[in-house]
Amino acid sequence: MWPLTIILLTNILLAMSQIHKIVLKERETLIERELKMMVGYSIELSATELVANEIIMDLKRKEIDYGFWNPKYYHLLKHFFEYKELVKDTKLYKILKSMPKGAVLHGHDTGMLGPDYVLELTYCDDLWICFKEDQSDVNFVFAKHRPTGWCATKWERAMDIRRTTNATEFDAKLRKFFTLVVVNPQEVYTDLDTVWDYFMKYFIRTGPLFTYKPVWEKYYYDTLFALREDNVMYFEIRTVLPPLYDLEGNIYNSVDTAKSYKRVTEKFKKDYPDFFGAKLIYAPVRSVARETLKNYIKVAKEIHKLMPDFLAGFDLVSQEDLGKPLKEFYPDLAKSGLNLYFHAGETNWYGTSTDENLFDAVLLGTKRIGHAFALVKHPLLMKEVKKRKIALEVNVISNVVLKLVDDVRNHPLATYLSQNMPVVLSSDDPGVWEAEILTHDFYVAFMGVSSRHADLKMLKQLALNSLYYSSYGEKHKLVREFQIRWMKFIGSILKMK
Amino acid sequence: MWPLTIILLTNILLAMSQIHKIVLKERETLIERELKMMVGYSIELSATELVANEIIMDLKRKEIDYGFWNPKYYHLLKHFFEYKELVKDTKLYKILKSMPKGAVLHGHDTGMLGPDYVLELTYCDDLWICFKEDQSDVNFVFAKHRPTGWCATKWERAMDIRRTTNATEFDAKLRKFFTLVVVNPQEVYTDLDTVWDYFMKYFIRTGPLFTYKPVWEKYYYDTLFALREDNVMYFEIRTVLPPLYDLEGNIYNSVDTAKSYKRVTEKFKKDYPDFFGAKLIYAPVRSVARETLKNYIKVAKEIHKLMPDFLAGFDLVSQEDLGKPLKEFYPDLAKSGLNLYFHAGETNWYGTSTDENLFDAVLLGTKRIGHAFALVKHPLLMKEVKKRKIALEVNVISNVVLKLVDDVRNHPLATYLSQNMPVVLSSDDPGVWEAEILTHDFYVAFMGVSSRHADLKMLKQLALNSLYYSSYGEKHKLVREFQIRWMKFIGSILKMK
Repeated sequence: MWPLTIILLTNILLAMSQIHKIVLKERETLIERELKMMVGYSIELSATELVANEIIMDLKRKEIDYGFWNPKYYHLLKHFFEYKELVKDTKLYKILKSMPKGAVLHGHDTGMLGPDYVLELTYCDDLWICFKEDQSDVNFVFAKHRPTGWCATKWERAMDIRRTTNATEFDAKLRKFFTLVVVNPQEVYTDLDTVWDYFMKYFIRTGPLFTYKPVWEKYYYDTLFALREDNVMYFEIRTVLPPLYDLEGNIYNSVDTAKSYKRVTEKFKKDYPDFFGAKLIYAPVRSVARETLKNYIKVAKEIHKLMPDFLAGFDLVSQEDLGKPLKEFYPDLAKSGLNLYFHAGETNWYGTSTDENLFDAVLLGTKRIGHAFALVKHPLLMKEVKKRKIALEVNVISNVVLKLVDDVRNHPLATYLSQNMPVVLSSDDPGVWEAEILTHDFYVAFMGVSSRHADLKMLKQLALNSLYYSSYGEKHKLVREFQIRWMKFIGSILKMK
Repeated sequence: MWPLTIILLTNILLAMSQIHKIVLKERETLIERELKMMVGYSIELSATELVANEIIMDLKRKEIDYGFWNPKYYHLLKHFFEYKELVKDTKLYKILKSMPKGAVLHGHDTGMLGPDYVLELTYCDDLWICFKEDQSDVNFVFAKHRPTGWCATKWERAMDIRRTTNATEFDAKLRKFFTLVVVNPQEVYTDLDTVWDYFMKYFIRTGPLFTYKPVWEKYYYDTLFALREDNVMYFEIRTVLPPLYDLEGNIYNSVDTAKSYKRVTEKFKKDYPDFFGAKLIYAPVRSVARETLKNYIKVAKEIHKLMPDFLAGFDLVSQEDLGKPLKEFYPDLAKSGLNLYFHAGETNWYGTSTDENLFDAVLLGTKRIGHAFALVKHPLLMKEVKKRKIALEVNVISNVVLKLVDDVRNHPLATYLSQNMPVVLSSDDPGVWEAEILTHDFYVAFMGVSSRHADLKMLKQLALNSLYYSSYGEKHKLVREFQIRWMKFIGSILKMK
C-alpha cells in the first residue's frame, strides 16, 4: 500500500506548494497594484532613467535599511536641526541637489534666506541697531542720522559697534536673532504657540532691516539666485507687500513694493535668462477685521490691473489657529475675482474652524492649498481636491519645525503620496530654519516620508507637478526645458557608476 | 437717472447676498455630507439620547475649545503619563467610565493590571526576590526553600525583606519595576527600540512572578474583575500561554495554561453572571524559526480540539520591526485552518517588510488587525479591509507610550474614524502604563483624536463594533444586553442635568 500513500502525499505536497505560489503571486500583485496608485507611478522610465533609478534606489534602500535596524542612529528620526548639516554629505542629498526640481510654489518673502546671509546684510551702510536692555531682542533701522524713539537703550551704528567691540562675538550674538535653530529645540519650543511666537518675532524684528528698499530688492534678487543654484527654475512668492522706505524719508506703498518685485524679477531674468522668473501671491496677515480685508482685496485688484501677468493671486497668512477663519470673509473673497491660493488646514485641531478652512478654501475655488496638513482627516474633501485638481503645497520641514508633527514618518504627506494626490513639495520659510532653499524638503520627503519603494518616478512627478500646478503662462515651454535639464541630470547620475 | 441706479444697485446687492447664502448653504451641506461618512453616523439617536448627547458635547466642546485657545495647558497635548490621573477628575472621563464600552478585543495576558496590583502580588507567601548587584533589576520566583542559581547576589524571601528593612521604601523601590511610567518619559525613552526594551524587560522580569500557577489564575480573575468594573462585558485575551509552575515542582504546559484560563473564566462567570466571559487568542512571540512556528500551530490546534469554543484563534506578538515578517511563515499559516487575528502594521517604516505584514495579514484572511497603525498609507488595503470587514484594533495610548506617535492628534485613528473604517478601540497593555483597563483609551480617542464634532453616535458605534467584530458565539444576546445597559447609561446622564 505504501507506494500509493507516497504518491498521494507527493500530490498533496505539490498542491500545497502550488497554493503557496499562488498566494505569493497574489501578494506581489496586490503590492504592485497599490504601488501603481502612488504619485509618479504612471511615468514610464526610459532605459537610462532605469539605470539612474537603480543607483538612487540602492542608496535609498541602504540608508533606510540601516535606519530600520539602527533607529537610534538614523538621522531622519531626530529633529531636523540635528541632521540638516549631516545629510548634506550624503550622495543622495547631492543627487537631489543637482536634480531639476521644477518650481517653488510656496515660499514667503523674507523667510527664504538663512541667518548667515541676513547677517551679511547688517554690514550695509547706514544700519542702526538698538538692543533691548536685557539683550533679549534687537531693533534695526536704516537712517542717515541717529534715529529717535523705538529704543529703550541707545541706537548705535552697526559699523561703530563692530569697530569698538569684538566684531566676531557681535556677529555671533546677532546671528541668533536670524534663526530658529537651537541645540535643544524640544526644550525651547515646548508647543506650537511658543514656536510660532519665536517665528513671528523673527519677522517683526527683521522687518525694518528688510523693508529698507535697497535691502528688500537685494534680498529678493539673492533669493532668486539661491533658487536657481538649487536647480529651481521658477518661483511663486507669497508676500505681505509691506511698505518700503529709503534714506530720503520716502515710504513706498504695497503697490510700489509689488513693482519692486517685478523690476527685480525682470533684472534677474535678464542676468540669468535660463531662469523662468516669478509671480506674486499677495498674502497679507489673516487676523484682521473685515474692513482691512476689503482693503487688501482693493490693493490686490490694483496690482492685478497694473501687472496682470505678474500677480498670480491672493492668500492670507500667519498662524492659522489664531487667525480669522476664511468663512468670516466669505462674501468679500467670493466676489473678489482674484485667483486664490489659500493656506488651509495647517492645524492639528480636527473639526475646529481652522480645520474647516479646508472646506472654505475648496468652496471658494482655491487653485492650490497651502499645507493642507489636516486634509487627511477629510475623505470627502480629498476626493474633491483630486477631482478639482487642487494642488497641495506640502512643506514637511516647516511642519516639523513649527510643531505640527514630530516624526516625519507620521506626516500626512505619506498618505497623499500613496493616493497620487496632486502634491507639490515646497519649503515655506527655509531660511528661518537654515534649510537649503528646496533640496532639504525633497530629501526629507523622499527619505523620511515616502515609501521605501518610492523612486525616481515619484521624484520626477513631484518636480513636474510643481510646473503643472504653477500659474506660469506657457507651461509647455517650462516643461520642455525641464525635460532637457532632466535628461542632463540623468546623464550625470550615470557617470557616477 | 439715479433712482434707476439705486434699483440696479439694490438688485445687485440682493443677488450678492443670495449668492453668499447659497455658498454658505453649500458649505454646510458639504461638511454635513462628510460628517455622515464618520464612524457611527448611520446611528439614529433617540430623543433621550439626543439630550444626553448635548450634555456630553457641551463638555467636549468646552474642553477642546479651551485647549484650542490655551494649548500650553491642554492635557491631551502632553505625554499620557502627565495627564492620566488629572483627567480622571473630569466629568467627561466619569461619563466614559460609566459608559458600557462593549468588549476588549486586544489585550495581553500579563499587561492588563497596574503596578499597585502587581506589588500586592509580591505579598503572596513563598515569594523569593533577588536584586541585581547594582539594584537595576530584580528576579522573582516562588519556592518552598531558598532557590539556587539565577542570582548574582542573594535570594531572599519578600516577607523577610519587609520585616527586616523599611517596607514602605522597599515597596516603592519594587513598584518601579512594574511600570513604564516615569516623570521624564521623553528623556528615558529616547526612541522606539529603547522603550520596547524596557517594555520587554517588564514581561521577562515579571514572568516567574506571574507564571506561578496560583498567581497566574488570580491575576486573570482580577483582570476580568477590572474589566467588568470598567463596564466591559466581554474579553478576548492574547496570550503567549507560558508554562506555569507550582511549589511542588510541577510544570504545566501551554495546553494546561489554556485550561487554567478556561477554568477561571468559568468560575468568574459563575461569580458574576452578568459578564459574558472571554476567549483566547494564542499569540506567541514572532521572532522564531519556522520549526518553532510549526510547533505553535500544533499547540493551537490541540487547544482548539480540546476547547473549540474557548480558543478564538491565533496571532504572533512582540516588536514587529524586529520580528519575522509574516511572509516567512506563509505556507504554515495559510494551511493552519486556525482563525487568525494578526498584529500588523505596528510600525512607522513605510514600505518595509513590517509595513507589508498588512498585506500578508489580509491575504491570510485575518479576522481583525492588531494596531494597523501603518494602514493609513495603504489606500488599496484600506478598501480591502473595509470590503472584507476586517476590524482594526486601535490602541492609541499604547502607540503613544511605545513611541509610534507623539501628538495623539496625528494618530491615524482620526483618518480611520473619518472614513467609517471598522474600528475597535482597545488598550493593549494598560497596566504597564498605568491606564485604566479601557476608559483611558476611550477618553483619549474621543477627546484627543476624533473630530470636535464626533459625538455619542461615534461612542456607541465604537462600543457596538467591539461586539460585532468579536468572536463571541451568540452576538445578538451580547448586543441585546448591551442595548439594555446603554439605555440605563443614558438615563444616568440625563439625571446629571
